[in-house]
Amino acid sequence: MAKELPTRAEDYSQWYVDIVKKADLAENSDVRGCMIIKPYGYAIWEKMQQQLDKMFKETGHVNAYFPLFVPKSMFEAEEKNAEGFAKECAIVTHYRLKTDPNNKGKLIVDPEAKLEEELVVRPTSEAIIWNTYKKWVQSHRDLPILINQWANVVRWEMRTRLFLRTAEFLWQEGHTAHATSQDAEKETLQMLDVYADFIENFMAVPVIKGKKSDGEKFPGAIDTYCIEALMQDGKALQAGTSHFLGQNFAKAFNVQYSNKEGKLEYVWGTSWGVSTRLIGGLIMAHSDDDGLILPPKLAPIHVVVVPIFKNEEELNKVTVAVEPMLKELRSMGLSVKFDNRETHKPGFKFAEYEMKGVPVRIAIGPRDLENGTIEVARRDTKEKRVMKYGDASREIPMLLDEIQKNLYARALKLRADRTTYVDSFKQFKEVLDGKGGFILAHWDGTPETEARIKDETKATVRCIPLDAKEEAGTCVYSGKLSMRRVLFARAY
Amino acid sequence: MAKELPTRAEDYSQWYVDIVKKADLAENSDVRGCMIIKPYGYAIWEKMQQQLDKMFKETGHVNAYFPLFVPKSMFEAEEKNAEGFAKECAIVTHYRLKTDPNNKGKLIVDPEAKLEEELVVRPTSEAIIWNTYKKWVQSHRDLPILINQWANVVRWEMRTRLFLRTAEFLWQEGHTAHATSQDAEKETLQMLDVYADFIENFMAVPVIKGKKSDGEKFPGAIDTYCIEALMQDGKALQAGTSHFLGQNFAKAFNVQYSNKEGKLEYVWGTSWGVSTRLIGGLIMAHSDDDGLILPPKLAPIHVVVVPIFKNEEELNKVTVAVEPMLKELRSMGLSVKFDNRETHKPGFKFAEYEMKGVPVRIAIGPRDLENGTIEVARRDTKEKRVMKYGDASREIPMLLDEIQKNLYARALKLRADRTTYVDSFKQFKEVLDGKGGFILAHWDGTPETEARIKDETKATVRCIPLDAKEEAGTCVYSGKLSMRRVLFARAY
Repeated sequence: MAKELPTRAEDYSQWYVDIVKKADLAENSDVRGCMIIKPYGYAIWEKMQQQLDKMFKETGHVNAYFPLFVPKSMFEAEEKNAEGFAKECAIVTHYRLKTDPNNKGKLIVDPEAKLEEELVVRPTSEAIIWNTYKKWVQSHRDLPILINQWANVVRWEMRTRLFLRTAEFLWQEGHTAHATSQDAEKETLQMLDVYADFIENFMAVPVIKGKKSDGEKFPGAIDTYCIEALMQDGKALQAGTSHFLGQNFAKAFNVQYSNKEGKLEYVWGTSWGVSTRLIGGLIMAHSDDDGLILPPKLAPIHVVVVPIFKNEEELNKVTVAVEPMLKELRSMGLSVKFDNRETHKPGFKFAEYEMKGVPVRIAIGPRDLENGTIEVARRDTKEKRVMKYGDASREIPMLLDEIQKNLYARALKLRADRTTYVDSFKQFKEVLDGKGGFILAHWDGTPETEARIKDETKATVRCIPLDAKEEAGTCVYSGKLSMRRVLFARAY
Repeated sequence: MAKELPTRAEDYSQWYVDIVKKADLAENSDVRGCMIIKPYGYAIWEKMQQQLDKMFKETGHVNAYFPLFVPKSMFEAEEKNAEGFAKECAIVTHYRLKTDPNNKGKLIVDPEAKLEEELVVRPTSEAIIWNTYKKWVQSHRDLPILINQWANVVRWEMRTRLFLRTAEFLWQEGHTAHATSQDAEKETLQMLDVYADFIENFMAVPVIKGKKSDGEKFPGAIDTYCIEALMQDGKALQAGTSHFLGQNFAKAFNVQYSNKEGKLEYVWGTSWGVSTRLIGGLIMAHSDDDGLILPPKLAPIHVVVVPIFKNEEELNKVTVAVEPMLKELRSMGLSVKFDNRETHKPGFKFAEYEMKGVPVRIAIGPRDLENGTIEVARRDTKEKRVMKYGDASREIPMLLDEIQKNLYARALKLRADRTTYVDSFKQFKEVLDGKGGFILAHWDGTPETEARIKDETKATVRCIPLDAKEEAGTCVYSGKLSMRRVLFARAY
């Protein structure tokens, strides 16, 4: 496998697309805007799912499943939500095909099978779920409801990009209902913390937690909280959102409960989600010009063992020699691949696993057998070292830990290097067009200024960081008073 | 919770619906034909998924994800398959809603957003997947492809029934591609065995493996293999199917590989699936007039512990006393619920967990504390016994094993009692209208006879059992020669 990626410096965008393709993660399908997640890419998603699902359950949530279709009248009940998604919905209008009388072997939509009411393929499930909660909630004893759903959703995007923006994508969506505003707000922030914990400690990507501006919040939410991560090209990626819905959906769907005093009150809601978009973020945060780099905690294969041999006899010797090590590493819960293909040379295999981001590669040949050693290469730094065979089961898990930590530290350093405090609009534009990255600047808080900045620079308010300090200043654009810096960036 | 189920004898059909509802498994949604799988029902599906996924991976399969939508021209490529599903497809024709100029706050389908080509919501994914395999397969070295997908599918059923038949359902679909007919046939039968293993050893339901008649096989398949289970009302349930597709889809989508001699050949295929329908089968196979009965291996809660107390002090004493037992049982991988709600009486809780099919219930009160005992009730037989507290961690896992075995044995006995060898059409009808169940009878093998028997009795050939012995006889309907008995039943 020859190195075939453009460097990040040459063409970051093509570099990304090529990694997705050459690391066998996903491909575009012949269906407009829809992707095919290939087995290796899907294995990363499974790792993410397992960990997130565990974290959701530990915080008291259970999974359930709601219909793919939302009748139009139900969809439009919460007006802001409907308006926000109406322009990008797949609509089912018929329920049957019939043979084309004019074209043998071909099918046409049967005009007699027109639905009385059109069905929207869910772009998100608040409507269908709150329509259900109406039936589930009577008393305060029925609250809270803490439900998550793993599902596919469809948003008719015009410009798509594998993992980052596709018409159909996979995600989880939490939908909770609470008796009080406080409970719902606590839940909203709790799930933001769960996401931040996952993305920092499993994806090894540092994030900034914050609140969206009114212009960028979820249609139908009172507040949208988000976590923002920085990619290597200096653009931001919104990695997850958690919405405080207030009583908006409860009112739209008439979901009321009788409180302890027997009085009817509207329920308070939240929703929160992350999607296969995280895989895009994972790729862009860590990978290098030789291919994908995966943090060990989400790598489908932790260690690949490549035998070096000239003939079958040598291969057999190596195979016998590595067996106890494979067994021991596997017994520790590591996923270890022994690549004994005779059809490919070691160099080809090395490049292949580099492209696929396998964190640790072990090479072992006849000379190693004589010396009782193995050659260990780590993917993140590409350092190689010779290790005693007997040390592998102690050293390899430590090395994987080190790689996990190093990836986080590297990403954190990148972010620190690319975060700039800016106090004028001139500097704002210079930084954006120069090193890019996160900009912390004063903003007057108005949607007008936000829109103008976006028009002129393509940068948006990524969030108002939760830890933003009160600090009097003047808006970089309007010069008006501002009490805190917000986070700007160009974004995916 | 009062007993509110009709008995199976009174109204089997209503009994089923009521269990689904009262055990909190699922409900009908306001979307035609689509169900909502509630958390307790979904937890059973998760258990099934985990086990099946493990078995698929152990047999060399990997997961991937393909688009929800199939363009009409792709859908119609394999004619028999298209014809088989055309009549029950949800069709996406538009990609946008707009505000209704005549009706404020309402939305209408935007006529300007009509798709050039309609999209079929997948009823099954052979078309989209084989269209992809075309790009993945060039050489014999690219084979086999062993892929499974967990997904939702939609078939526009007119008469729906929770879990058993719904417009949208969840399933897994395996799609494999092989170099030779033998490899594909071996795969087809291997997956049939995997399903049988799962259904017998985890669902505790005995199955008969067989081949479908030509009239009942999957549209586009050469052979369809199935496993058939018997429900308590004497009707059969098809619990899983595995299809040998021959080269049908390879030819429809032009999927060819160059063999070792460099000659182009069409690829051989299989597909196989089980769905949330299995939950319906699980309910109907084991449950009784007091509610659901779950086999321990698929029960979301293995053991519920109900404290008996008159006041808070007694509850506190019981709570402290049971803690070590809860911890020990949980450390063994058991899911144990301690229901310390003060809002409900023990009798209510007993009935609730009976309805929900929790395999083992432990009750413990002040008198038990004095005696160092617990009261253990098993859900399957409803037997109660007093056990020494200290024996719980040894005895409870054994009891769960015993329940798992007993459920299988009971279902096996039911099937034996309800399987009848029949040699005349008069007897055939008598058995069907009497005790029902499986009928082993001679059939002349023609679709005409099969159709007439179905018309007259509503019974169908469930399968030609794989273990059917050669035995000359005469068809119960036509009197023509037959070389083996086949399995008839009325079916879900």
